[in-house]
Amino acid sequence: MVAIDIATRVWNHTFKLDPIVRSLLDTDFYKLLMLQMIWGLHGETDVTFRLINRTRTVRVADEVDEGELRAQLDHARSIRFSKREMIWLAGNTFYGERQIFRPAFLEWLKDFQLPPYELAKRDGQYELMFRGRWTDTMMWEIPALAIINELRSRSAMKSYRRFELDVLYARAKAKMWEKVERLDKLPAIRISDFGTRRRHSFLWQRWCVEALKEKLGSRFIGSSNVLLAMEADLEAIGTNAHELPMVAAALAETEADLREAPYRVLKEWQSWYGGNLLVVLPDAFGTASFLERAPDWVGDWTGFRPDSAPPIEGGEAIMDWWRSKGIDPRDKLLVFSDGMDIGTIEETYRHFDGRVRMSFGWGTNLTNDFRGVAPEENLGLHPISLVCKVMEANGRPAVKLSDNPAKATGRPEDIERYRRVFGTAAKIPREVTV
Amino acid sequence: MVAIDIATRVWNHTFKLDPIVRSLLDTDFYKLLMLQMIWGLHGETDVTFRLINRTRTVRVADEVDEGELRAQLDHARSIRFSKREMIWLAGNTFYGERQIFRPAFLEWLKDFQLPPYELAKRDGQYELMFRGRWTDTMMWEIPALAIINELRSRSAMKSYRRFELDVLYARAKAKMWEKVERLDKLPAIRISDFGTRRRHSFLWQRWCVEALKEKLGSRFIGSSNVLLAMEADLEAIGTNAHELPMVAAALAETEADLREAPYRVLKEWQSWYGGNLLVVLPDAFGTASFLERAPDWVGDWTGFRPDSAPPIEGGEAIMDWWRSKGIDPRDKLLVFSDGMDIGTIEETYRHFDGRVRMSFGWGTNLTNDFRGVAPEENLGLHPISLVCKVMEANGRPAVKLSDNPAKATGRPEDIERYRRVFGTAAKIPREVTV
Repeated sequence: MVAIDIATRVWNHTFKLDPIVRSLLDTDFYKLLMLQMIWGLHGETDVTFRLINRTRTVRVADEVDEGELRAQLDHARSIRFSKREMIWLAGNTFYGERQIFRPAFLEWLKDFQLPPYELAKRDGQYELMFRGRWTDTMMWEIPALAIINELRSRSAMKSYRRFELDVLYARAKAKMWEKVERLDKLPAIRISDFGTRRRHSFLWQRWCVEALKEKLGSRFIGSSNVLLAMEADLEAIGTNAHELPMVAAALAETEADLREAPYRVLKEWQSWYGGNLLVVLPDAFGTASFLERAPDWVGDWTGFRPDSAPPIEGGEAIMDWWRSKGIDPRDKLLVFSDGMDIGTIEETYRHFDGRVRMSFGWGTNLTNDFRGVAPEENLGLHPISLVCKVMEANGRPAVKLSDNPAKATGRPEDIERYRRVFGTAAKIPREVTV
Repeated sequence: MVAIDIATRVWNHTFKLDPIVRSLLDTDFYKLLMLQMIWGLHGETDVTFRLINRTRTVRVADEVDEGELRAQLDHARSIRFSKREMIWLAGNTFYGERQIFRPAFLEWLKDFQLPPYELAKRDGQYELMFRGRWTDTMMWEIPALAIINELRSRSAMKSYRRFELDVLYARAKAKMWEKVERLDKLPAIRISDFGTRRRHSFLWQRWCVEALKEKLGSRFIGSSNVLLAMEADLEAIGTNAHELPMVAAALAETEADLREAPYRVLKEWQSWYGGNLLVVLPDAFGTASFLERAPDWVGDWTGFRPDSAPPIEGGEAIMDWWRSKGIDPRDKLLVFSDGMDIGTIEETYRHFDGRVRMSFGWGTNLTNDFRGVAPEENLGLHPISLVCKVMEANGRPAVKLSDNPAKATGRPEDIERYRRVFGTAAKIPREVTV
């Protein structure tokens, strides 16, 4: 006789909801770092975030039930930071620094709650918007994306029998492990999990993180997911994101102001953080334009995260810039995090090995690569390019140009204006798969 | 908080032993069929069975702890047929026939217990012998082999951490599933599980059986394992084995008697069973010799199981013989069961498709193919060619010639005598890997 714990079984029957997000720490670390600075400097700024599905061919609203989506979003709104989470944030060392979060910020954070959302359906897509104080709305980005992506996975697997699921996860693990074994052949690899927003599911992300930790040891430098970092005693990884220059640019009053926005943001960042947190994200309005106008002090920062240029081309451009400033790239860091997978990681690693310090932020292809693992090919398990971006700040439109026009956001007329101001030429879009 | 069932956890701590064999039905079906006939016709015959490790390079006694082996064998001796097992044997339909087991036999069987064993170590191998009544000793073959093979797996995995085991089984499932998907491409395949004796473990065999059932549906015709057949509502598959002609031959008083032994055994079988159970195992003393002397009535049997010749060569020889008797092979059955794996199954299937009825008994490469799935290659997980064979009957030496001299058993002088009597030429041995 197999012993079944009756209490557990009955408890399972009482579930109204299997919550996807169960902690406010189940978010990317850079959100908390940015939040502290925004809280300190831009507490009065209103910013609207908006869900964008760049994979238009996938009709997310047909795949994900609206009632289930609302229930998950509502549940996320009910969560608060727990006492032990607050203690960990206050007491942990991040990037080698103690007390990176100021007591006054943590005091404010302990009552944090995700703000209301606006949800509608249009043309098979969800229109999901978060309006309000930047300090509130910015925290929706990661949970909102994680929720929709996991609901989409659940929906794609709804008809599977127990055994099919067993085979599916066995094959996913085998596929993932092949990648980890290939990474293991790169002796100086430094890689972290950046896969929270696009994950297949929370449990699957956790498995992937365990796999990397198991095989790569200290070459796996940590996870962007704060909850997983806490639970697995890993480093929380991340610095800043496009929302900072996008909001700064949206609020700029003059063209000169607009042109200066990316550097003003770095100045602000530097006034809050130091050391390894000084990583430049150069591509919000085009990396070439950014580098051309960048003041010399940007060369003092630890490194760059080229996030939309092809990794080798983008990395070389930044190295050229360092050299033009008399800086040896071997003292500097490049963080590659745009749509990386095992093949591009290997290629990039081999290209730059010994020439510059580098690390990889591995996202979608780490935590949501289920292509070819289902019993029959299941497109619902293929990841889509879902993002949650700043749409406007204090009522003014926000824009991102990116090094890949397929990743640009904003109204066409605003994009045009930004191109002119930043002198960023229109390029050929490269397909955004993840 | 994860809910742990405390009672289960504490219960786990009390295990003195995790038994490998937990039911006397956890054996091959042909054992029960043969046992009934032996009980009816040869109840007074003494037969000694002996463990033989054909893979001499693997020192089983160094890998498997003697104390653990004794504990498992002792546990197997403590098992009796349960009431519901007896009811199932009495009430189930086997090969389309009701009440294949006679009430008097079942009455005798309900008190059955595995007899004592003799165990010693020599040169890194176990000398394991079962002496006594044929009706008792013959039932040790499958549990003894399953126990040693699973203890060997356990020993090979002893040092693995939880996560390594997770990856190992994920990869084993993925590997197995690739095979099942290839089988699924053979529209008229008929295949059964013959993997009890060589299985990696009981739970793994059960998973493999579920996988075949899931994907192949009715093309998976059943399992030789009676317990799995009962639990999963599958057909129990199997007919007879080499021990029948080997004992008959050992007891033969004259050379003419010896030469007749293989056919005498078939006569006896036919007096007990009919229909689809009439499958000839022709290779005990060489298939060529068997066919040459075979009486015409052997052509009335349902089919043959060539068990040591290469499948295509062996199958063609039997088809030639049928045709020489004016029989259309398309009315006849070939059962291929010797060391088959997905590649040889496909090849054999394509070779014979439409020319003869065929089915496959898939053994070691179904239930114990862990090559290449461990984190690092682990030879302890590679299957070995372990068998448990008749050594003597009523004190007289037993011999098997086989179509592959690597599978011959017996003393050299006896093998020589059998070769002469059966006119079986010495052949080049083919490596026995499983």
